[in-house]
Amino acid sequence: MATPNGQTGSDTSAREAGLKQLQERFHNRVSQADAVREQHAHTTTWHPNQPPDAVVFAQGEDEVVDVVKICAAHGLPIIPFGAGTSLEGQVNAPMGGVSVDTSAMNAVVSVSPEDLDCTVQPGVTRKALNTHLRDTGLFFPIDPGADASIGGMAATRASGTNAVRYGTMKDNVLSLRAVMADGRVMTTARRARKTSAGYDLTRLMIGSEGTLGIITELTLKLHGIPETIAGGVCCFSSIEDACNATIATIQCGIPIARIELLDTAQVIACNAYSKLNLEEAPTLFVEFHGSQAHVEDQVRQFGEIADSFGAGEFKWESEPEKRNALWQARHDAYWAALQMRPGAKGIATDVCVPVSRLAECLAETIADIEESGFIAPIVGHVGDGNFHVLPLVDMDSANEVARAERFLQRLAERALDMDGTCTGEHGVGQGKTKYLVRELGDPAVEAMAAIKLALDPSNMFNPGKLFPFGKIPGTVPDGRTTK
Amino acid sequence: MATPNGQTGSDTSAREAGLKQLQERFHNRVSQADAVREQHAHTTTWHPNQPPDAVVFAQGEDEVVDVVKICAAHGLPIIPFGAGTSLEGQVNAPMGGVSVDTSAMNAVVSVSPEDLDCTVQPGVTRKALNTHLRDTGLFFPIDPGADASIGGMAATRASGTNAVRYGTMKDNVLSLRAVMADGRVMTTARRARKTSAGYDLTRLMIGSEGTLGIITELTLKLHGIPETIAGGVCCFSSIEDACNATIATIQCGIPIARIELLDTAQVIACNAYSKLNLEEAPTLFVEFHGSQAHVEDQVRQFGEIADSFGAGEFKWESEPEKRNALWQARHDAYWAALQMRPGAKGIATDVCVPVSRLAECLAETIADIEESGFIAPIVGHVGDGNFHVLPLVDMDSANEVARAERFLQRLAERALDMDGTCTGEHGVGQGKTKYLVRELGDPAVEAMAAIKLALDPSNMFNPGKLFPFGKIPGTVPDGRTTK
Repeated sequence: MATPNGQTGSDTSAREAGLKQLQERFHNRVSQADAVREQHAHTTTWHPNQPPDAVVFAQGEDEVVDVVKICAAHGLPIIPFGAGTSLEGQVNAPMGGVSVDTSAMNAVVSVSPEDLDCTVQPGVTRKALNTHLRDTGLFFPIDPGADASIGGMAATRASGTNAVRYGTMKDNVLSLRAVMADGRVMTTARRARKTSAGYDLTRLMIGSEGTLGIITELTLKLHGIPETIAGGVCCFSSIEDACNATIATIQCGIPIARIELLDTAQVIACNAYSKLNLEEAPTLFVEFHGSQAHVEDQVRQFGEIADSFGAGEFKWESEPEKRNALWQARHDAYWAALQMRPGAKGIATDVCVPVSRLAECLAETIADIEESGFIAPIVGHVGDGNFHVLPLVDMDSANEVARAERFLQRLAERALDMDGTCTGEHGVGQGKTKYLVRELGDPAVEAMAAIKLALDPSNMFNPGKLFPFGKIPGTVPDGRTTK
Repeated sequence: MATPNGQTGSDTSAREAGLKQLQERFHNRVSQADAVREQHAHTTTWHPNQPPDAVVFAQGEDEVVDVVKICAAHGLPIIPFGAGTSLEGQVNAPMGGVSVDTSAMNAVVSVSPEDLDCTVQPGVTRKALNTHLRDTGLFFPIDPGADASIGGMAATRASGTNAVRYGTMKDNVLSLRAVMADGRVMTTARRARKTSAGYDLTRLMIGSEGTLGIITELTLKLHGIPETIAGGVCCFSSIEDACNATIATIQCGIPIARIELLDTAQVIACNAYSKLNLEEAPTLFVEFHGSQAHVEDQVRQFGEIADSFGAGEFKWESEPEKRNALWQARHDAYWAALQMRPGAKGIATDVCVPVSRLAECLAETIADIEESGFIAPIVGHVGDGNFHVLPLVDMDSANEVARAERFLQRLAERALDMDGTCTGEHGVGQGKTKYLVRELGDPAVEAMAAIKLALDPSNMFNPGKLFPFGKIPGTVPDGRTTK
């Protein structure tokens, strides 16, 4: 068994021995095929593909324990892998090592309708979970668009369209189990709705991007499927008006379930891709959940606000099929946008600012897009102050890639200047490491590094991610560490 | 300047030098008076009073930095102090050292009504904050009963009556600043509503009980004061019926703002203390928030549920004064209970279980109270599965104290057997350390200890708290470390 990433010396022979031991333990469930390795690094994002040395397909927590013990004994990095939908290089293997694919750990372990919770293995995807739950009257609300795995969603602190009402993964995981660097399984909490028993290890693991351990089980909060759901779209004459309508909605405390902004470019793309005939203007997609009376009340209040900001006619979809088609179009925004420049790659990025700064941040970003000459549609979870920009870039043009990187940097710095974050929901991965110190300062980043090294002293879990150069041994300046 | 807790050797002289330096820096804002020291250890709880060597009254973050640097240089423990309302020994000084009183750091730094957030110093109390906010139409919902400081509420992950709707402190702090062991100030997050930029240091500090650093500023989520508030009481023929009505309310997704259970003993106590004339039976205090239509909808739904569990007549209080009197009676439950056995001390404890196990846990606990012969009223934030028991104990009777401790142990173990937690909202402090490993297992507790020592290598911050014997150097078996 050779290590494809070409280490030399004793390190290499230890790694080779580790890979051999994995093969003896997992037989045909460990793969070194190029296609498998590449598929487990990044494929849909702009980050270069950095495949692991091998992929292990784990079928249970005990197997994850064995992988961790073998890798720990042989100096092999471990990259946890769920569905591979992360966007900032989280599943790349810049230092080689073993990708631990948990997609076969896809059992719903238990559902407790009376407690509104369930326990799942990490490979369960959000769609599979909601299909499983459909007869209980309950659902799991976090919806990042892609059919991500629950384990991966926890690891990257995912959120998405419903977060304005239901929160993010940090708000919807009661407890989890994870295999830590010493091969032991840590349980972070019991199943009680709240606790004050010690440090919040649940929240520490959520958003740790696979750098502290491998999540092997999660207990999730569930919510009742609303008695009534009303969804619709309305357009505005400017981004500013759409933002101000959003801000007023949040300020009035209307518990809106979804409020999504599409800029004109994205509306044009969605019309073409999803066969819609929306007016080509900044548009809000909204959804309200609750009892019939409560939804009517929310719709009335929102309607008055939208009117006062000059919204066009409100188009309601009460039939589930039509409403789902609308949200499918929203979720397909990424694919729709790509069609606007065939052959180009979409560089997905996101920032999040205090909602009072949202209109200003969007206006400056749109001006920057125009000045830079990019096609770069915008969609936003605007109720949270969070938006995505997708510059479409010819990756063969070094000049264009460099211009895009400068654009991303200006966007991140603009968000930071407005007391926002360089990443609202995509995580740090490899792409945002360089902004972390500017965002949080040295004491916070160094506290994270101290925690990382306290729990994973040999930097075995997902090395080269999250931490900027110099904060953890073994990283190089651009955050894409290589062996 | 003498160290009243009587160390010997070079350790003592270093500590004395540290206290001298504090006096030179803070003059009359450092006190070694017995009354001040005792007042800054525990006064209202059953834990023995263990005063610090000195109390420093800090007036700003820069002063907290200076205290930390002086204490670090001289081996003096630091015990952060807010309003002193914690219940599990959190502000005791079992190893002596310096209590850092932040009550004078009570400025509301800024309020951003358009972002529904505000930034405060840690000494602001929740009542002072809500008074400050009253003209903005916003409020801060977390309400642990006592007029606790916001910094202390964050440090102990407080929750209280509104948590069923608004969450706990972990859900309502956007970011915070804290002085860490090296004297540097750490900022945990920006002001954006959500972020995925690195480890969740905000949640790590919330609930850390002063063992990782001193919180010096917090940015909080605010909520709109509801257009309509409806509150009321209804009684049931059994605890079980009251619990089952609660469970059904939660399962139906009714966004009830408060749902509090008082057992018959507590109702009798409240009638006497607060001059109420409630029927002497298990009683729910409830409150609904929202628009007029939404509240009416909730009241109707809840009324149907309560009826189906045989509730007595619902008594509504729509006038704010009467409603506030009712909730004041709820908040005075502790004082009311104490009157049931003059001279006795109330041993306040709490547990939290999955809501489906609540009726069972309460029934077993009440049977245990009867068997043990205690007067021990129960109040509960039952929407969360969380309840408090207050055995009234003659602290001069060693036998009675021992029986009470065994009762507390059975209660904690009962909650753990039902997949609950030994503490829903009081924290671990000194009183619950012995249950932590049973609740979470060694890997979790050892991960906490590793984090603690990574961020506070000399165990300077609040030593003798949270960690069980053997998990952190310097603790003794009963969790009440002494010098």
